[in-house]
Amino acid sequence: MTLDPGQVFQNAIYIAGAHDWPLTPAEWEERARAALEPAAFDYVAGGAGSEATMRENLAAFERARLRPRMLAGTAERDLSVELLGLRSPVPFLLAPVGTLSIVHPDADLAVARAAAATGVPMVLSGAASTTIEDVAAEGPLRWFQLYWFNDREVTASVVARAEAAGYGAVVVTVDTIVLGWRDRDLRHGFLPFLAGHGLAHFFSDPVFRARLEAPPDEDPLGAAAQALAVFPNLALTWPDLAWLRGQTRLPILVKGVVRGDDARLALEHGAAGIVVSNHGGRQLDGSVAALDALVEVRAAVGPEATVLMDSGVRRGTDVLKALALGADAVLVGRPFVYGLAVGGQAGVEAVIRQIAAEVDLAFVLSGLRTVGDVDRSLVA
Amino acid sequence: MTLDPGQVFQNAIYIAGAHDWPLTPAEWEERARAALEPAAFDYVAGGAGSEATMRENLAAFERARLRPRMLAGTAERDLSVELLGLRSPVPFLLAPVGTLSIVHPDADLAVARAAAATGVPMVLSGAASTTIEDVAAEGPLRWFQLYWFNDREVTASVVARAEAAGYGAVVVTVDTIVLGWRDRDLRHGFLPFLAGHGLAHFFSDPVFRARLEAPPDEDPLGAAAQALAVFPNLALTWPDLAWLRGQTRLPILVKGVVRGDDARLALEHGAAGIVVSNHGGRQLDGSVAALDALVEVRAAVGPEATVLMDSGVRRGTDVLKALALGADAVLVGRPFVYGLAVGGQAGVEAVIRQIAAEVDLAFVLSGLRTVGDVDRSLVA
Amino acid sequence: MTLDPGQVFQNAIYIAGAHDWPLTPAEWEERARAALEPAAFDYVAGGAGSEATMRENLAAFERARLRPRMLAGTAERDLSVELLGLRSPVPFLLAPVGTLSIVHPDADLAVARAAAATGVPMVLSGAASTTIEDVAAEGPLRWFQLYWFNDREVTASVVARAEAAGYGAVVVTVDTIVLGWRDRDLRHGFLPFLAGHGLAHFFSDPVFRARLEAPPDEDPLGAAAQALAVFPNLALTWPDLAWLRGQTRLPILVKGVVRGDDARLALEHGAAGIVVSNHGGRQLDGSVAALDALVEVRAAVGPEATVLMDSGVRRGTDVLKALALGADAVLVGRPFVYGLAVGGQAGVEAVIRQIAAEVDLAFVLSGLRTVGDVDRSLVA
Amino acid sequence: MTLDPGQVFQNAIYIAGAHDWPLTPAEWEERARAALEPAAFDYVAGGAGSEATMRENLAAFERARLRPRMLAGTAERDLSVELLGLRSPVPFLLAPVGTLSIVHPDADLAVARAAAATGVPMVLSGAASTTIEDVAAEGPLRWFQLYWFNDREVTASVVARAEAAGYGAVVVTVDTIVLGWRDRDLRHGFLPFLAGHGLAHFFSDPVFRARLEAPPDEDPLGAAAQALAVFPNLALTWPDLAWLRGQTRLPILVKGVVRGDDARLALEHGAAGIVVSNHGGRQLDGSVAALDALVEVRAAVGPEATVLMDSGVRRGTDVLKALALGADAVLVGRPFVYGLAVGGQAGVEAVIRQIAAEVDLAFVLSGLRTVGDVDRSLVA
Repeated sequence: MTLDPGQVFQNAIYIAGAHDWPLTPAEWEERARAALEPAAFDYVAGGAGSEATMRENLAAFERARLRPRMLAGTAERDLSVELLGLRSPVPFLLAPVGTLSIVHPDADLAVARAAAATGVPMVLSGAASTTIEDVAAEGPLRWFQLYWFNDREVTASVVARAEAAGYGAVVVTVDTIVLGWRDRDLRHGFLPFLAGHGLAHFFSDPVFRARLEAPPDEDPLGAAAQALAVFPNLALTWPDLAWLRGQTRLPILVKGVVRGDDARLALEHGAAGIVVSNHGGRQLDGSVAALDALVEVRAAVGPEATVLMDSGVRRGTDVLKALALGADAVLVGRPFVYGLAVGGQAGVEAVIRQIAAEVDLAFVLSGLRTVGDVDRSLVA
Repeated sequence: MTLDPGQVFQNAIYIAGAHDWPLTPAEWEERARAALEPAAFDYVAGGAGSEATMRENLAAFERARLRPRMLAGTAERDLSVELLGLRSPVPFLLAPVGTLSIVHPDADLAVARAAAATGVPMVLSGAASTTIEDVAAEGPLRWFQLYWFNDREVTASVVARAEAAGYGAVVVTVDTIVLGWRDRDLRHGFLPFLAGHGLAHFFSDPVFRARLEAPPDEDPLGAAAQALAVFPNLALTWPDLAWLRGQTRLPILVKGVVRGDDARLALEHGAAGIVVSNHGGRQLDGSVAALDALVEVRAAVGPEATVLMDSGVRRGTDVLKALALGADAVLVGRPFVYGLAVGGQAGVEAVIRQIAAEVDLAFVLSGLRTVGDVDRSLVA
Repeated sequence: MTLDPGQVFQNAIYIAGAHDWPLTPAEWEERARAALEPAAFDYVAGGAGSEATMRENLAAFERARLRPRMLAGTAERDLSVELLGLRSPVPFLLAPVGTLSIVHPDADLAVARAAAATGVPMVLSGAASTTIEDVAAEGPLRWFQLYWFNDREVTASVVARAEAAGYGAVVVTVDTIVLGWRDRDLRHGFLPFLAGHGLAHFFSDPVFRARLEAPPDEDPLGAAAQALAVFPNLALTWPDLAWLRGQTRLPILVKGVVRGDDARLALEHGAAGIVVSNHGGRQLDGSVAALDALVEVRAAVGPEATVLMDSGVRRGTDVLKALALGADAVLVGRPFVYGLAVGGQAGVEAVIRQIAAEVDLAFVLSGLRTVGDVDRSLVA
Repeated sequence: MTLDPGQVFQNAIYIAGAHDWPLTPAEWEERARAALEPAAFDYVAGGAGSEATMRENLAAFERARLRPRMLAGTAERDLSVELLGLRSPVPFLLAPVGTLSIVHPDADLAVARAAAATGVPMVLSGAASTTIEDVAAEGPLRWFQLYWFNDREVTASVVARAEAAGYGAVVVTVDTIVLGWRDRDLRHGFLPFLAGHGLAHFFSDPVFRARLEAPPDEDPLGAAAQALAVFPNLALTWPDLAWLRGQTRLPILVKGVVRGDDARLALEHGAAGIVVSNHGGRQLDGSVAALDALVEVRAAVGPEATVLMDSGVRRGTDVLKALALGADAVLVGRPFVYGLAVGGQAGVEAVIRQIAAEVDLAFVLSGLRTVGDVDRSLVA
C-alpha cells in the first residue's frame, strides 16, 4: 500500500491518468451525480435540513491550517495504525454507509473487495445491501456498524452474527435513533428502505424473519415496513450499553458523539472507543462541525482513549488535520461512495489510492514518518 | 399535536408529500412570491434600509452551533410551554403580523383557524385585517398585540375590547412608534394602510369612528389617513407603562427590546414579560441580531423573567437554539405568512406542523424530553 | 430642515415618490453611472489600487451593530451640531469633492445652492471647478478645503482668498501630498486636471497666474501642467503647520488622519480639529477603515477635541454609527456627487433630504433626541 | 530606479499608458492566460490540491490593514535594501521560478536582462531553462536557488558552478523535497520536465551527464527521467546543512520555512538567512499563509536575522505589509512570470517598474523615507 518514496508524484499521475479517473473531490462528486438517479445521488450527497452542518464540516477543515516541518528525514515512512487490534496501512478506514445498492449493483461486495485489495479496512453498515456473512467472505479486515433497534432480540441476533462472521468490533451508532430531517429526500419522497435497499441484514436474519407474516420475497413492502418499525429506538440511554456489552465479546465503539461529556459517558459505560461524528451532517442540522467536536472530545477523554472521527474528510490533508487535532484515525465516507458510483470496485480502489497518496505526500511535506510523529503543533 | 415517537420521519414525508406543500423556508418563500403581487410580497419579505439586520438575524442563527446529547432517552416527550397562563404544545407561537389581507382574503381568520386546529396560539396583530372580536370567535388561544397610539382614548378602547373578547395578554410593541424606512415599500410606493388593509380594529372601534367626519365605508381614504395620524407616538416613555397597566387587568409583555437595560426598565415599570425582537429587521436597519440581543437580555433580567424572542426563526432547529440561548418560547412570523399566501388556513397549518415536526425531531436528536431539559450548553 | 415628528415615513415616500428620485445608495450610484461618461464615473466611484480600503470602509459600517433604546420620548428632536462655530441642522456636512465639472456643468455652484437650500454646509474643495468667490456668493455656510501646494505663495494666496470670502475654517488635507494609484483612472488614462477640471482656484489666483508664461485661456494645458507641478508636496511635516497658522485667523482642521498618534500631533501643532478619513479609499490602498480609525483617534485625543470623519458614509444609520463611535459629525461625499450627476442641484438636495430623513428616523427609532444623547453604548 | 518625487502618478500613467501594458495583477494574469497554452498557464498559476493555501496567501495580505503616518516629510526617499551583500534599489527581488521556457522562449535570459536593466536582482531557479553560466553572463546581480538532489555529487557540482559564475548566495529550497500534489497539472497530465523544460543545469552539468547512458540531445526523455530520479530527496535533515556549507563559501539561505522552530533550526545549522515561503501554495495544500508564518518566524529569530518572504505578493502595498510584519525584503514570483508571458523581457521590466512605483507611492503615502522607517505599527 505504502507508496515508493520518491515516486509519489509519478504515482499520482499514474493513478489519475492511466485510468482516466476523476482527480478532485469535486470531480468525483460530479461524475457520481452524472452516474446516478437524482434521488439516489441526493440521498448520498445530501444532509439534514439546510445542510448547515454539512457545510460547516467542510469549513472546519478549511479553517484548520497546517504548520509543516522541513528537513525531518521522511524517506522511510510507516503510515499504518492499529486500532483495537485492527491494522490499516493508512490512518483511515472506510466509513459505514448504508443502502449502497442504490449506488451500484455490487454494493458492499465491491467495497469489501476494494478493501481487501488495498488493505484498508471497511466498517460494514448496519443498513447494508449485502449480508454480514457475504461481506465477511471477502476478507478478514472489517468492523461491523450496528443500528441498535427497538427489538432487542433482533439486535442481539445481528450482533451475534457479526461476531460469528469474524468482525473485529461493533461500532454502535447513537446519533441515528431515528432518521434526520433531510430536505432532499423529502423533496424526492425517497426512502431507500421502502424500495428494499439496505435491509440485507434484516431479511437474512432468522429472528427478524420470525417477526414477519410473509417472507420478504413474497411481501417485500411488508418486510420493509417491519424493518422500519424496529429501527427507531428513542428510549436508549447510556446504561443500556451494559446490555449490549453482554451480547458480545467484541469491543464496542460508540459513533456519533460530539460532546466531551458524552464521550466520557460512553467510556464510563464500557465503550472501547469513540467515533466523533455528526453523521456527515445528515442528522441534526446546525450541529457543531465534527472537527471542532473532535478537539473537545479528545480534551475530555485524555490522550489514551481510542478516538476516531468522520464527517467532512475529503482530502489527504484533511486526514492529517484530524490526526493533529486528536484523532487516532478517520473514517472516509462519501468519497468512496462516489468512487463506487463511478467505477464499482475499481472506483473505490482509485479513491482509496488517491487519498492514501495524498496522505503520504502530506506526511512527506510535513516532516512526518509515522502517525506517532503527528502532534498538535501541526495545526495552527 | 405532539408527533408519535418513532414516526417522525414518516410524518414529515406525509406532511410534505401527501399535500404537495413546499418543504424548506426557501421554497415557501418562493411559492409565496409567485402567489402574491410584488408589492405585497415585498411588504412581507422586506426589511428596513439595506436589510442588514434582516440578514444578520438569519446569520446569528447560522452562527449558533448545536451540541446535541446522545442516548438521553427521548421516547416520551412533552414540548409544551406555559407562558403567563397561555399553553402551547410546542415552544413557539404565531407572531403578530399586520395587514394579512394583502396576502390572502381570509387573512387573520385563516390564521386563527389554523391556530385552533393545531393548538398553537396566535398573537393577533394590532394592525390586523380582521376585528378583535371576529378572531376571538375562532377559539380561546391568543394574545393581543397592541400598537400604542398617540390617542389614549382609542388605545384604551382597543385594549378594553381585547380584554372583553378573552385575549390573555397584551403584547405592546415599542419598536414601532413610527414605521421604519423600508426601501422596497418606498420603491413600490406601497403602504397597505392607504389601501385600507390592516385597519380592522380602527374601523370597528367606536372611539375611533367618533373621530371621523364620515364613516370608513363612505370615506375610506379619510379614515385611513386618520388611522395613520393616530399611529405614530414618539413621545412615549417607560413611565407611560403605568397608564397602560391602568387600562387592563391583563398581563403586559413589551415587544421590541434589544438591550438588557431596556428589558430591566420594562420589568421595573410593570411588564410581565419581554419579547426580544427587532421587528424582523423592519424597523432600525443595522440593529443587532435578535438572537444576540436575546443573550444580553436574558443575562440582564435573570432566569425567572418571561422572555420570548422573534426575528429570524425559520426552522425547528432555530427554535431550539433560541431556547438554549435564553428564550422561554419564540414567535414565528414570516414562515406562516408564506403558508397563508400559498394555501390559506391549510398552508398555515402545514407550516406549523412542519416546524413542530422539526422541533420535535431536534429534541429527539439532541437528547431532550422537555423544554426544561434545554440548557445553555446546547449551543457552542 | 428637521422633519415633522410623526411624518417621517410619509415624508420619505414624498421625497422619493413625488420626484422619482432613486432611493438607495446603490440606485443613486447606478443612475449616476448611466448619466456619466465611464471615465468620469470611475473617477468618482473608484479608489486606490485593488479598492480594498474602499470595500473595507463600507464593511466597517456593516460590522457595527446598533443597540437602540426604546420608549425614550423622541417627539421633540434637535439634530443640529455646532462645529467650531459652524452650525448644521443635521450631524453631517457635504465633503469636499474636486473636479465636479466632470459630473455636472453647474458643478460646485449646484452644491452650494443645495447647501443653502437645506442649510447643510458644504466644504468647498481645493480642487473645485468653481472659484472660491463664486461659491461664497451663494451663501454663508461653508468651510474651505485646502490642498497645501509646494508653492507657499500660491498656498497663502488661496487661504487668504478663502478667509476674505467668509469661509469659516480651513480643512487642510494631509493624505494627498500626491495622488494615489488608482487603477480605474490609469486604465482610462484619465486625469481630470489635464482636461482643465478642478483648477478654478488656480486659474483665478493672481499669484498662480504670475507663474504662467501665458494665461490659462490661451494655454490651458500649460496652465494645467503648472498646477500639477505645484500640487505635490512631499516635504511637508507637522512643524510646517505653524506656517499655515500664520497665514490665517481661521481655525484649521487636519483631514486625512487615521492614527491616534497623528491626531495628537495635529492638535499639538495647532489644529483646531481632526477629520478622520482615508480619502474615501482613494489614496493608500490597504489602509484601515475610516470607522475603525475613528475609534482609535477619539481614544487618543479625548472627548473634548473636535473630530469629524468621512469615508464610507452612505446611509443615515451610518451617520449614527459614526457619532456613537466618536465623531462630532461626518462628511458625506460620493452620495451627493451621485445626486449631482443625476439631477444637478435638485439631485443634491434630494440626497441631502433622504439622508437627513434617515438620520432623523434612526434617532427616533434609537431613542435619541439630540446628538448629545448619542453614546458609545449605541453600537455593540 | 527610484522615481522622481512628485512624479509618481505621472510615471504610473506613463508606465501603463505609453506601453499598453496591463495595469492590475488580475489583468496581467488574464493577459498571460491568453498568451499561454492552458497546461503551461495552469502550471504557473495553479497550486497544490484545493489551492486553499494559494487563496489564503492572498487573504492574509488582504486582512493586513495599513496605518499610514501623515506629514512625515517623504520628499527624499531611499527604498534600497542590502541583503547579505546584495543590494536592490527596492525591497523586493525576483523569486526563483523554474521551467520558464514553457512561458517564453527567452526564459531566464529575459528575466536576467530585465533584472540588469532595472537593478532589481533575480534569484535564478535550480530548475531553470537557461544554464547557470548563461544567466551569469547577463550581469552581476543574482543569487542561485538550489534544489538539493539525492545525488550529492551532482548537487555539489551545481553549487560549485554557481559560486564560480559569481552568484552571491545559495538559496536552498527545503519545502520541495518532492513535488506537491497539484490538481491542475494532474488533470493536464503535464509535467514540464518530461517535455525537457527546466533541466538546463542538469543537461549542462558534467557530473550529471556522466550518469547518463546517452547524452540529452540523443535521448532527451532518458535524461529527463534521470533528472527526475535524482530530484526527490526525502532523507534530508537539518544536520545535512553542514555538508552543504562545506561545498561553498557562499552564504546559504533556507527557503520554504513556515515555523519559528524550523527557522531557529536553520540558523543553528549555519544558514545565513531564512526565506519564509510556502512555495506560492504549490506544495502542501492547507499550509498557513506565508504572511502569517512570517510573523511567527520573525518573533522566533529576533530582529537581527535576515528574513525574506514570498507567496502572495501581488502589489506594492503587499511589499510594505510584509516589511512591517518582519521581512527584510520580499520575493515576487508569479507577477513577473505573467510579465514574461505577455511581453518577454519588456514585460518583466514593466511589472518590476509598476510594483516599484506602487512601493514608492506606498512609502510616500505612509510617511516613510527608508525601509528602516518601517515599523510594526504600520499594520493594524
